[in-house]
Amino acid sequence: MLNIRLLATGSALPGLDVTSAMLDARHGFKAGFVREKSGMSTRRFAAADESQSQLAARALHDALANAGLKPDSIDLLLSACGVQEQALPSTACAISAHAGMPAGMPAFDINASCLSFVVALNVAANLIHSGAYRRIAVVSADLPSHGLDWDKPESSLIFGDGAAAAIVEKGSAVQGVRAFLFKTFAEGRRLCEIRGGGSQRNPTVGAADADYLFSMNGKAVLSLASKRMPAFMRELMGEQGIALDSVDVVVPHQASHVGILHITKRLGLDPARVVNIYPTHGNQVAASIPTALHHALSSGRLRAGQRALLLGTAAGFSLGGLVLDL
Amino acid sequence: MLNIRLLATGSALPGLDVTSAMLDARHGFKAGFVREKSGMSTRRFAAADESQSQLAARALHDALANAGLKPDSIDLLLSACGVQEQALPSTACAISAHAGMPAGMPAFDINASCLSFVVALNVAANLIHSGAYRRIAVVSADLPSHGLDWDKPESSLIFGDGAAAAIVEKGSAVQGVRAFLFKTFAEGRRLCEIRGGGSQRNPTVGAADADYLFSMNGKAVLSLASKRMPAFMRELMGEQGIALDSVDVVVPHQASHVGILHITKRLGLDPARVVNIYPTHGNQVAASIPTALHHALSSGRLRAGQRALLLGTAAGFSLGGLVLDL
Repeated sequence: MLNIRLLATGSALPGLDVTSAMLDARHGFKAGFVREKSGMSTRRFAAADESQSQLAARALHDALANAGLKPDSIDLLLSACGVQEQALPSTACAISAHAGMPAGMPAFDINASCLSFVVALNVAANLIHSGAYRRIAVVSADLPSHGLDWDKPESSLIFGDGAAAAIVEKGSAVQGVRAFLFKTFAEGRRLCEIRGGGSQRNPTVGAADADYLFSMNGKAVLSLASKRMPAFMRELMGEQGIALDSVDVVVPHQASHVGILHITKRLGLDPARVVNIYPTHGNQVAASIPTALHHALSSGRLRAGQRALLLGTAAGFSLGGLVLDL
Repeated sequence: MLNIRLLATGSALPGLDVTSAMLDARHGFKAGFVREKSGMSTRRFAAADESQSQLAARALHDALANAGLKPDSIDLLLSACGVQEQALPSTACAISAHAGMPAGMPAFDINASCLSFVVALNVAANLIHSGAYRRIAVVSADLPSHGLDWDKPESSLIFGDGAAAAIVEKGSAVQGVRAFLFKTFAEGRRLCEIRGGGSQRNPTVGAADADYLFSMNGKAVLSLASKRMPAFMRELMGEQGIALDSVDVVVPHQASHVGILHITKRLGLDPARVVNIYPTHGNQVAASIPTALHHALSSGRLRAGQRALLLGTAAGFSLGGLVLDL
C-alpha cells in the first residue's frame, strides 16, 4: 500500500456548449441521430481562444482553491494528457506557465493515452512513498474536438473536451493506492490512433490532413477489452485479496455509453455504484477519469473512508486499474 | 539513495551517414561551412524505411543482448523520447510492438524533452525502490531530421538521429541514484519548440507547414542556462554533500559544441572527464545522454564502482542532473 491522500480535485470545462441537436444540424444528420448514436445530450468544445494548457491550468487552480492551497506549495506538476498540446516541449511546461507555477518547480509529462491520469497518479504515489516529492499535482486535459473526423460518426460523436486535476500528498496508514495494475497489449496499437503530428507523419516526411484525425475500430477495441478484462480484473483485485464488493464507487473511463454499460455488466456491478457523467460530458480522453472522480467527490457520492476503483482502457491498447482508499 | 544498478545499456543508429560536406553541398553552403558552424564531422539520419520506434526497439535489443536477457524478463517499458512518433497512442506501444515485448507488459511514455531519459531513469529508480517493478527498460529515440528548418543553420545543423536504452533493477547498498534534481522554468518554454502536431496547431484548427519544424533561440537558451546553472548545481550536489571532484565521468546532454564547451568551463571540469560524442553524433535530443552514457560504459571509460553525473538542459526550459553510483 502506497500511502497517499487526495488533498483535493478540480475540473474545468471549455466555453462552447454543443448539444447533440446542434451536431445533427451542423453535420446534416436527421433530428435525434447524434443523441441516439452517441448516447449523449450535450458536450463542451473549446472555443477558438481556449487552449488545452489553459484549460488544464484552470482545472489545477480549481483543485488548489478547493484545497485552500497556493501554487508554490506544489513540489511537482505531472501533466497526464492523452494528446500533447504541441510536439515539443512537454505540455507540462505550458500548463506551468498558464497556472503561474513558481520558477523552478519541476514539470513533465506522463502519457498512457486515456489512462494517463491513472498511471501518473500511481507514479505520484511511488514518488511520495520514496520521499522524492512531498505534494504533487496531476493534471489531465484533452481537446478531442481539435482532431475529429466528422465523416465517421462512430469515432467523432462520442467526445467532449475537458480538464481535471488532483493534488496528492502523504496519507495515513489506511489511505492510498491499495492496488494498481497497468497492462499493454501492443497488438492493438493501431485500433485507436492519430497517426500524424510526431516524427512519423508531418509535412517534412509527408502526411495527409486525414493523418491528424482520430481513427478508431470500435468493434475491435471492445472485443480486445472483453478478451483481456477478466484475467486483468483477477490480477488487479485477486493478488491483493480485494473483493469487488468492498469497492464503494467505480470510476470508469467514460469511453462511450456502450463501453460503460459493457464494463458494468461484465463486472456484475450495481449501476448505482458506477459514476457515469458520459451523457453530458462524453469521452474526454485522459481528462475523463479525473473529471468523473471529481464529480463523485464534489457531489458527496464518494467520501473519506471509502474505496474507489479507477478503471479503464486506453489506446495502445492498454488496460488500467487503481484501487484508492480515501 | 535509491539503490538501482544498470544491468546494461545499448544504442542504435539509423542507416544514412550524412557528413558535414554532404550538407554543404545539399543546402548550397560554401565548403567547410557546416563543419565549422556545427562543430560536427558527421551524423546519422534515418532512411525513409526507418521509424523512431524501430530504432528504439533496436537500441532496446542491443541492451537486452548486452545483458544476456530476453524481452520477457522486463517488467515495464518506459519510452523517454523528446518528440513522440505520432500524436496518439504513446510511443511506448510502438516500441513494444517492434521489440516483440510480451503481451501485457506495461508500457508508457515520460516526456521531459531532451531530459526525458534522466527523468525516466529517476522514475524507474523510485518504482524499483518501492517494489512496484523489478526490472525496467528505459528507451529513448529521436529523429530530429524529420523536423528541421534548413533555412536556419543555427537550429538545423547541430542534430543527429539516434536511440539508446538502459535496463535497471535493484542494486546493492552502494549502487544507485545518489542525487537527482530537475527544475522547470516555464518562462523559457517558447525558446525551443515545435508548435505543430498536437491539439494547438494541426489541419483541423489551422497550421502552417513551418509549425512542424523545430525553432530555437540559441542565444536566449544559453543565457537562461547560464543564469540558472550555478544555483542548480549547488542544490543538486550541495544538499547531498557530493563534491564535483568525486564524479569520475560527466555525461552531458550533447546539445551543441558551444553547449558542451560552456558547461565544461562553467563547472571548471577537466575535459577528459566529460563524455563528448557530439562531433560524430550531434544533438540526438532525448537519445543524446543515454547514447553518451552507453559510449562511456562500452568503451570502459566508465566502470563499476565509479560515479557518473548525467547533466543537461531541455526545451521547456528545464535543467536536470542525476548522480549515479555504478
